[in-house]
Amino acid sequence: MDTPSQLALRRVAIDTYHENVVYLNRECATYRAEGFQALSKVEVRAEGRKILATLNVVDDDNIVGCGELGLSEDAFAQLAVESGHKATVSQAEPPESMGALFRKIDGERLSKDDFTSIVHDIAQHHYSKIELTAFMIATNRGGMDREEVFFLADAMVACGRRLDWHSPLVVDKHCIGGIPGNRTSMLVVPIVAAHGMLCPKTSSRAITSPAGTADTMAVLANVELSFDKLSEIVREHHGCLAWGGTANLSPADDVLISVERPLSLDSPAQMVASILSKKISAGSTHLVLDIPIGPTAKVRSMPDAQRLRQLFEYVATRMNLSLDVVITDGRQPIGFGVGPVLEARDVMRVLENDPRAPIDLRQKSLRLAGRLIECNPDIRGGDGFAIARDILDSGRALASMNAIIKAQGARPFNHNQPQLGALTFEVLAVTSGVVIGIDNLHIARIARLAGAPKVECAGVDLMHKLGDVVRAGDVLYRVHAEFHADLDFARQFSNKLSGYTIGDAKNLPHVFVEF
Amino acid sequence: MDTPSQLALRRVAIDTYHENVVYLNRECATYRAEGFQALSKVEVRAEGRKILATLNVVDDDNIVGCGELGLSEDAFAQLAVESGHKATVSQAEPPESMGALFRKIDGERLSKDDFTSIVHDIAQHHYSKIELTAFMIATNRGGMDREEVFFLADAMVACGRRLDWHSPLVVDKHCIGGIPGNRTSMLVVPIVAAHGMLCPKTSSRAITSPAGTADTMAVLANVELSFDKLSEIVREHHGCLAWGGTANLSPADDVLISVERPLSLDSPAQMVASILSKKISAGSTHLVLDIPIGPTAKVRSMPDAQRLRQLFEYVATRMNLSLDVVITDGRQPIGFGVGPVLEARDVMRVLENDPRAPIDLRQKSLRLAGRLIECNPDIRGGDGFAIARDILDSGRALASMNAIIKAQGARPFNHNQPQLGALTFEVLAVTSGVVIGIDNLHIARIARLAGAPKVECAGVDLMHKLGDVVRAGDVLYRVHAEFHADLDFARQFSNKLSGYTIGDAKNLPHVFVEF
Repeated sequence: MDTPSQLALRRVAIDTYHENVVYLNRECATYRAEGFQALSKVEVRAEGRKILATLNVVDDDNIVGCGELGLSEDAFAQLAVESGHKATVSQAEPPESMGALFRKIDGERLSKDDFTSIVHDIAQHHYSKIELTAFMIATNRGGMDREEVFFLADAMVACGRRLDWHSPLVVDKHCIGGIPGNRTSMLVVPIVAAHGMLCPKTSSRAITSPAGTADTMAVLANVELSFDKLSEIVREHHGCLAWGGTANLSPADDVLISVERPLSLDSPAQMVASILSKKISAGSTHLVLDIPIGPTAKVRSMPDAQRLRQLFEYVATRMNLSLDVVITDGRQPIGFGVGPVLEARDVMRVLENDPRAPIDLRQKSLRLAGRLIECNPDIRGGDGFAIARDILDSGRALASMNAIIKAQGARPFNHNQPQLGALTFEVLAVTSGVVIGIDNLHIARIARLAGAPKVECAGVDLMHKLGDVVRAGDVLYRVHAEFHADLDFARQFSNKLSGYTIGDAKNLPHVFVEF
Repeated sequence: MDTPSQLALRRVAIDTYHENVVYLNRECATYRAEGFQALSKVEVRAEGRKILATLNVVDDDNIVGCGELGLSEDAFAQLAVESGHKATVSQAEPPESMGALFRKIDGERLSKDDFTSIVHDIAQHHYSKIELTAFMIATNRGGMDREEVFFLADAMVACGRRLDWHSPLVVDKHCIGGIPGNRTSMLVVPIVAAHGMLCPKTSSRAITSPAGTADTMAVLANVELSFDKLSEIVREHHGCLAWGGTANLSPADDVLISVERPLSLDSPAQMVASILSKKISAGSTHLVLDIPIGPTAKVRSMPDAQRLRQLFEYVATRMNLSLDVVITDGRQPIGFGVGPVLEARDVMRVLENDPRAPIDLRQKSLRLAGRLIECNPDIRGGDGFAIARDILDSGRALASMNAIIKAQGARPFNHNQPQLGALTFEVLAVTSGVVIGIDNLHIARIARLAGAPKVECAGVDLMHKLGDVVRAGDVLYRVHAEFHADLDFARQFSNKLSGYTIGDAKNLPHVFVEF
């Protein structure tokens, strides 16, 4: 028997975004002999290590020569073997969980072992983009019952790191997303930390929104912390506001996001598994979950919100997480600013008790913080809000935030003079009346077109909110950008539709929620 | 307003298999300014032309420099503008049909216009691999009713070329696949052509099987014909056996195959739309369709076969195609050889009336040809088989085949001395008894591991078929390969399981089919 021919490893500096890709020259003897086809799954072995990857065939010796085996950035990092080392490539056996995936595609119910096997393969980058998408679509709406969602979430926790804070009370809050400017975490964390609760908050960067908590916090401080640094900060200050990407918490979730994002998928089952797996991996024992409802929110009716709440509760209970779901007003953006710098300005004004602070952001944050404070069994039910308000009004929340910012590594920021994108345009009311609608999706899209979150000084600054009386010609919002092309994209889009509806006060939509 | 910055087009010789990929340097000002992310959908414009593509970010100036815009082979071919020309790249609006795709993912029924829009976007390469997969999975089992299947098939015809042979009777035959060695087309075409019927057969190459008709025909003749050449051959000889890939028939189907293949998807709805759209685009008026059933065939029970037959019939009727479905015996491979050269040998032996010709291949081909001949209203029902047999026995089918081979461009081939792969091993019966099972999937897999269809001389030569009495030590089949690595893969796989079951004659599985 021949040994498979040896090729020299070569790093090909192409970012294939969470997919391992191997590049082989079409004239390479191995390629011809093995009967590979483009997009075949192959196995690469070197120095006792192995990875699975998708094959791309190359006709250019400058990218990869005949005796070479090219690896994309992701594949190179995962194999973790130096360039030039000898490697072999062969047809890969399909990932072990392929049978389970096909059963799910065919509509069957899967077992706990099936999910364990699938999630393991996903976290190990054994799935191609095509296989990942097949899994996501097959488990989309109606594709999983609630116990399967638990199996999935549990498997996602099991395949990554799980933090242990050695405390019976580790609190967190989370929002399902979809509401621009909804930066309550940056207020809730310093408030509950000032109250002495452990709140090691790790957040994601924006996936489809104009800013995630990590993007906005990054305006004020370094958010990319090693786990040791993060632990040290939490021990000293009880809280942190860090980016969760470095901690290897629920790594399968990070891989799945690579196909969720381009498809803008957000099914209840996947949302529940994703959020709860991250929280449990991060060591939380108590979670307050914010589900906003409104005409342009992710959840648009109370029956949908209740169904989603119950799915969260079922899975959280199976995973021994104490969960308090709050259904909130999601009819419009929270605060004034949408985009990292603008949102950081709003957050700091609330902390500073500045008169220009957005009242809705303050009130919502206090209520969520109050609920978290009531996770402490020593607190009387209903007292949380007043405790949170005292912490904020007294300046203790600001002190707590400043300590966290300093510990993470402060960046210069002054909420009186936020460095906003210098290119601007304003969108005016075309008639007089009452603001009866602000489209969350539309405002988010304009902020993204203007450059947020990548360009942190870009975004949308809202001058009026629901219920405000405006006259024709009043400024509804101002758009900030750094680059002309971005400004033009945002302008073209807002010219088509402003995102604001002006009408009669009696047509103001109502939602019946706690807050 | 700024004009978008201009970049120089550069062909990046990477075969991304039916997906347009754009490579931008991470340091490129356009990349930074536009807020692109890896896997973003972008629009490239040059010389008044435009394409959509998926973005890969590159950190190597040798692949693509800062002032350059790299295009994968597919993207470069589709844009069809020379290297070095100025091009612009911008965030792409999502393809128009994205709304319809999301509704299908959510389980809704789509309209004719929705399918037209989706199929148009697919054929124009506006979908990424992720979006294509989402469409395939969302329309998989149960995801489409029969009228939607018609909408899909009809849209697939509409977006490509449609041939017109100016004849009221253009016949074709097709098998849904899954049975190794089932090369009846190469016998049916010369028989019905000799009878004077128009049979312009275009076939695919193997997708997941060890040989497609185009692969086997390629052993005997050139199969890559221009449309003009193909027309000329059909006019003169009434038939051809060509590869269908060059004719732009149902181009969306060719794109969808790029995700079907890695997932081995084969849902009834997609199968019906794919096959019927190709046949109608090729100008067929009458089709005989072969649905084999058996324990290891694609269709494993008569109720499944009947359901599939009815779906084919419903859609064919809506598309004005006269369809005759035949449910056949799919318990084992047809003929002896599996792999291009081995199958070509079997076919030529049937045509030559050689005593070594496989009787099952001969009988099945005569029956299918007989059914096609009966599409001629002048033929009395039931007479087709005898007419086909006379054409074959008299040598007229051989003459017709030889004429077609010569017209397409003959390759040297002698069925008495087929050039088989020189590396071989034999698999022997371990006990005595009757052959009561031959696993189609297993035999196909061994032939593919041995190198077929890419290595045309590779494959499996069966020495015994169902019902044969064998003694321990008898050769069940011989495997041929050209490369040692292939032979070893095939041997390892067949060592695990031979694919043959030997037992008692009373356990021979029966199927109750016409033939």
